[in-house]
This record gives sequence, structure tokens and C-alpha cells, in this order.
Amino acid sequence: MIIDIPKNSDFSIYNIPFGIFSTKDRSPRAGVAVGEHILDLAAVAELDVFNFNTAVLEKDTLNDFISLGKEITSKVRSDIQHWLQDDSSILADKPELFVAQAAAQMHMPVFIGDYTDFYSSIEHATNVGKMFRDPENALLPNWKHIPVGYHGRASSIIVSGEAIHRPKGQVMPPDAPAPVFRPTARLDFELEMGFITGKNTKLGESVSTEKAEDYIFGMVLLNDWSARDIQKWEYVPLGPFLAKNFASHISPWIVTLEALEPFKVSGPDQDPKVLPYLEYKGEKNYDINLKVGITPENSEEVIICNSNFKYMYWNMAQQLAHHTVNGCNINIGDMYGSGTISGKDEKSYGSMLELAWMGTKPLKMKDGTERKFINDGDTVTMKGYAEKNGKRVGFGEVSAKILPAR
Amino acid sequence: MIIDIPKNSDFSIYNIPFGIFSTKDRSPRAGVAVGEHILDLAAVAELDVFNFNTAVLEKDTLNDFISLGKEITSKVRSDIQHWLQDDSSILADKPELFVAQAAAQMHMPVFIGDYTDFYSSIEHATNVGKMFRDPENALLPNWKHIPVGYHGRASSIIVSGEAIHRPKGQVMPPDAPAPVFRPTARLDFELEMGFITGKNTKLGESVSTEKAEDYIFGMVLLNDWSARDIQKWEYVPLGPFLAKNFASHISPWIVTLEALEPFKVSGPDQDPKVLPYLEYKGEKNYDINLKVGITPENSEEVIICNSNFKYMYWNMAQQLAHHTVNGCNINIGDMYGSGTISGKDEKSYGSMLELAWMGTKPLKMKDGTERKFINDGDTVTMKGYAEKNGKRVGFGEVSAKILPAR
Repeated sequence: MIIDIPKNSDFSIYNIPFGIFSTKDRSPRAGVAVGEHILDLAAVAELDVFNFNTAVLEKDTLNDFISLGKEITSKVRSDIQHWLQDDSSILADKPELFVAQAAAQMHMPVFIGDYTDFYSSIEHATNVGKMFRDPENALLPNWKHIPVGYHGRASSIIVSGEAIHRPKGQVMPPDAPAPVFRPTARLDFELEMGFITGKNTKLGESVSTEKAEDYIFGMVLLNDWSARDIQKWEYVPLGPFLAKNFASHISPWIVTLEALEPFKVSGPDQDPKVLPYLEYKGEKNYDINLKVGITPENSEEVIICNSNFKYMYWNMAQQLAHHTVNGCNINIGDMYGSGTISGKDEKSYGSMLELAWMGTKPLKMKDGTERKFINDGDTVTMKGYAEKNGKRVGFGEVSAKILPAR
Repeated sequence: MIIDIPKNSDFSIYNIPFGIFSTKDRSPRAGVAVGEHILDLAAVAELDVFNFNTAVLEKDTLNDFISLGKEITSKVRSDIQHWLQDDSSILADKPELFVAQAAAQMHMPVFIGDYTDFYSSIEHATNVGKMFRDPENALLPNWKHIPVGYHGRASSIIVSGEAIHRPKGQVMPPDAPAPVFRPTARLDFELEMGFITGKNTKLGESVSTEKAEDYIFGMVLLNDWSARDIQKWEYVPLGPFLAKNFASHISPWIVTLEALEPFKVSGPDQDPKVLPYLEYKGEKNYDINLKVGITPENSEEVIICNSNFKYMYWNMAQQLAHHTVNGCNINIGDMYGSGTISGKDEKSYGSMLELAWMGTKPLKMKDGTERKFINDGDTVTMKGYAEKNGKRVGFGEVSAKILPAR
């Protein structure tokens, strides 16, 4: 191996995820994560080993690189895998090609033109329905027929690490005569994964479940922050708005669909039968372990959730087929969130709303404090990895601290 | 006057709206509409009359031009107004600077990063509430406290003239055991106006109602197409999605806020009192006459709606203040739709849903056919203009034909 990759690294030789990084000496550019390092792709390009216009590797987003198509981007990834494992390859004895992750700053990996958020975990939708609607009829009538989704705000999607201020907004306190304006008292995270499209369609075209994977470049972890009190007051009838668009964080490395291929598993049975345009063949779920931790200021992290992406009722192929069945066009770099990923077990719920069950079951921190929602000073960290037959492919983390309201 | 401007032209000397056009010989570039012509701004720039980097005038969107700031873009507009009225100005005897609109193709005037749609007409919200919810409590409790809005799809916003196919989607027929997939049977338009932001904010910043106009570059007409049957089945709980994102059309010319300044009027009283961050001073509504016509294939246009932008309950300053009060960041080129613009009079309703009252009052066409919603082959055309003291400032039109489902 050209460079040491720690055992259990998310960024093993089987992964090779793409991102945008910079250092003191290097302007934002494309790189791949390898163990605790970043391989500088713009620097590799100077070795004249790539068969495409390598100016795309010096851009501050991956959009143009991704637009080259999977034939090229997949080959870059597999070439790197080969070179890294060949001690006499073109990467040998060139330490200047590698940057320590600790010395690099990560940036948004893509420019996201449009962001859609789905609601595809049956456990999450059921929990929310139980809390806010009818416990006996928790799922709405359309839920098992439609991968329910809605448009989110693209401008406020930011990369892991950037602290945010607690948002303010209108809330209607119980029994109050009128709404009040104040910092949210119910700041929540949502454990999600997002996929990034790698191919455009024209308006009027649709993507079938069968072809969907050709249009998906890769995935990231997504924390879809939510202000539950703002949401409750605003969301009927047109959906969540200011309760969500103050910020959403993503992990900086896009793990390619090829890297995730070995971790495919069957999804849950879908009953009632879905409409033909949503039918699919083969394994379309992915076994990706997910966890969420809260680190209060001056205390230690407590893991509060262990979930798995395999629980999703609706898979990404179905989501994309549904999204485009009316001819809605997609662009390279668009992001599609899974919706909160909850499992059956109450320790696998993907939001504070569910974990602390509307505040009725507060979570204990190591400093003795309790959490019904997220406090100022808390850092919320989500991690995810897949592992099988000794091969580990991980996402690193999406982590951010909450600062007090301005 | 350097060039003849027909009386009653939308594009009078008082207007000077900005757009992107191309001709056989000219690649997409910035222009302003003057009567029946377009003044080619990239060609004007060659006369060396502008004090900024004029490369922005050769781009295929106005975003970079707008990013110069109002100090510059307003001066370009007022300079052009002066030059056009001075027969010895630098524009004199230079017919090559002008292109007949009939010979030009119009393009999207801006790249729209994010699109938000509000729901700010009290008459429209009341009509919808009467039809679908409780006639006695038509307005939802939050409506008079919040300029209700939601995120829409930016990728499928297209410019006037581009025909679209009737979208297909999931609908739940009354009393059916399960949803079906079919072309929408309830294709509707929504008469809206959209404003385009001209200044960025950073995440965490807010724009006050007082400052909002500094952030708004100008306005367009917007047809927010809606598939009512798809909408009905999908929209609870997260809002409209595929019912809207198959296409939205805008008019090609951005009329600046300065051009609209003389047409400001008071808005309706807001009772109950709004929260302080939504309070505003002065006149923030605009008296803009709006109309909608349907032209069936091989028949004549019937005007089915006469409305006015002044009816809006929530104004643009309130919409922008609300949108950013949680710190949501905005970008140059973002678009914000007003929501359907209905008046009190039933001939001023801004959608077929309301005009034909859920199909109970079909509209008569000149060829003897009736319309409950929009048919294949129909062209829907929206026009808008303001007029006062002999000064007319118009938007031209947003017009598009519906082709059969693919």
C-alpha cells in the first residue's frame, strides 16, 4: 500500500469517496479520502495520467467532474484503488500528493441546485403519526402508495463542522391567544442520508426504477435540522418551511454508489402492491450502520441512536422514479434526502422528537443533564459505515455545534 | 425618441426591463425591451459607455449583471432612458443596436437557485379553504399571522413560450379502492407574480421589511401550473410536490422595482396585528392589472380572469422578512412567487379551480366548448401592466400551450 490506511478506517481502499478540500497552500479542489489522508486529484492530474480535461479537478465543486459521467469517474476511482495498492505505481514516493485530513478544510462537495427531502421510513412516519395525529391510524392513506417528499431549501445546505445559531421564528404556545416570536425551544436533528444525482434529464423525461442507479453518483450523511415548535405552527397546509430551511448539514465525502454496491440488501415487503412505475427488481436497500451522538459543552459524547439505512421502506430508485414520473427534470448535484431514518427499536429512532417521545422520555447526558431536544452548546454528530467480509466503507461524519440564538 | 415606441406598449420609456435574448446572429445576451424592440446591451457596451466589467452583459443569465448592485443596474436603466429620449445621444443612428422582438428568442432571464412559493392572497386562501376544508372556517389559524410559503422546484421553471406536456401522476379517484397512475384530469394554472432577489445574504442574516426592497431586483409574471388531482392525493402532510414541479412558466422580462415605484398603493388592513418583524411602513403593494386568457386550439382567446396584484394580503417585504427571519440565506436570482392572485369578484379569481368552482361552473369558450380545467391544445396567456398618469409599465406575457401527455 502506498499510504498507511488504519484498520477500521471509513476511508478504506474499498471506498475512495470524492470531496472538495483546501489547505493553507491549496485552493479548493477535488480529492479522495484515503485513511487519514486526502489524495489531491489536481496534483495527481499533473502526472498526466487522466484521459479527460483535468481542469474539472481544480473547481471548487465536483459538479463538472461528475458531469464527465460514470465511465470516467468510476475509472478514476478504480485507477486510484490500483495505484494505491501497487508500490511501484505512479503514486509511489510522492508524499506531496497526500494531505493529512487534519490539515485540510473540507467544503461543500457539490453545488446543489435543488434539494428534495423524502419521508421514507415507515417507522418514522408511524411515530410522527402516533404523536401528532391518530395513534390507531398513524400512517396517512397515501403513505404506502407514494414515496412522500417535498422540496427543501438548497441555499442553506452546509458542510459538516460549520456551527449554526439556534433559529428564531413564530410559534404558537399551547393555550396562548396569539403566536410569539422567539428562539425555537424544540430544536431537533433528523438522521438522514442524501443521494446526489450525477446525470441531467430534460424537462418531460422520466427515470425508471431500473435506470435510477445510472443517475445517482453517490451518497452523504445528512442532518436535516428541524425546529419542531416552528414546524407545528407553520406546516399546515403547505408543508415545513422555516422550521427546516435555517440549515441542513451534510458530510463532506460523497461515497459512490459503486463503493456501496457490496452492501445491498433486500428492502421490506411493500404491501399493498405499489403502482407499476414504482415496482423494482433486485436489492435496492443498503446495509449502512448509522449512529447519532450528542456532546454537551464540556462533557463527553453520548450515543443516543443506532439505526440503519436498510430500514427504509421506499428505496432511492423508487424515490427518483417517483420524482421524475411527471417529467420533473433533475440536474447533476441535486440532493435527495431519505427522510429521518428510524428503526423499530426505540433506540434506533432518528430524531429527538421520537427518542425522547415528545419530551416525555428525556435522554440522560454524562454531565447529569437531560435532553428533550437539543441545547445550546450541544454538538450533534452522525456517523455511518457499511461493513461486510472485512471490507469497510464509511462516510466519516456530519457534525455541528449549536450556538445560542443571535 | 431614438426608436418608435407604440402608444400603450408595455415596454415604454418608463419601463426598460431586463432580459436575455438571442437571434440567429447573436448568442444569448442581456437586453432591455423598448417598444417592439430589444436594445442589445452587449452591443451598447462596445460604445464604451459603461463603467463596469461589461462581460456580464454577454452572459446567458442576468445574475452577474444583477450582482453589480442597484447603484450600477439602476444607472444603466436611467442612462438608457436618457439616451433613448435624446436624438443626439450615443444611441442615435445606430439601428444595429436594436433587434425586433419578433426576430428574437427569449431565454430564462436568471439562473434561479431556489424557488419559494407563497400563498399570500386572502381571497385565494379563503376560496381553497371553502372548497376543501370548512366553509365556516376557511382560513387556517396560522394564515393571518404567517405569510405561508413553501419551497418549490427551481429546475423546472421555464420561460414563456415553451409548450409542455400534460403531466402524469398518482391520483386517487373518488371511491376507488386504490390510487391509479394517469395523466392529470385537473390541470390548472395559477396566476402569480414572482420577485427576483438581487443581493445575497449570509446564513444567519435576516432582511427587515424596511430593507427588503434593497434586496429585490424586479418582478415577472408567473404561471404556477398545478395538477389538482395529483395535489389532492399527495399534499398531506408535507405539501404540494409532483402536482407543481412538472413546470412553472415565467415572463422573460424582469421589470425593475424602480420602474414599479410609481404604482405603489396601500395594502389591505392586517387584523389581527402582525408580529413586530412583519410590521412595515409605507405603501408596499403595487397596482398591477393582471389578466388570464385561454386560447383553445383553432379558436380565439377568451379572457377568463381580471385580477390585480394590489389585492395581496401579504406584501413582498413581509414575505422576504419572514423567509429570512430564521437566518435562511438568499441568493441573487432566487425567485419568490406570490401565490395565486385572486380578488373578491369571482371574475378575478386566479385559477380554474376557483373560476369554475371545482368544476361546478364551467367556463364557455368561443368554439362552444366548456372548461372546468385546462384541455390539451389550450394556450394559457397571462398579461400584466401598471398604468398611472399616462405612464404605462407592463410585463408582456407569460404564455404556454399544453400538449397531450407523452
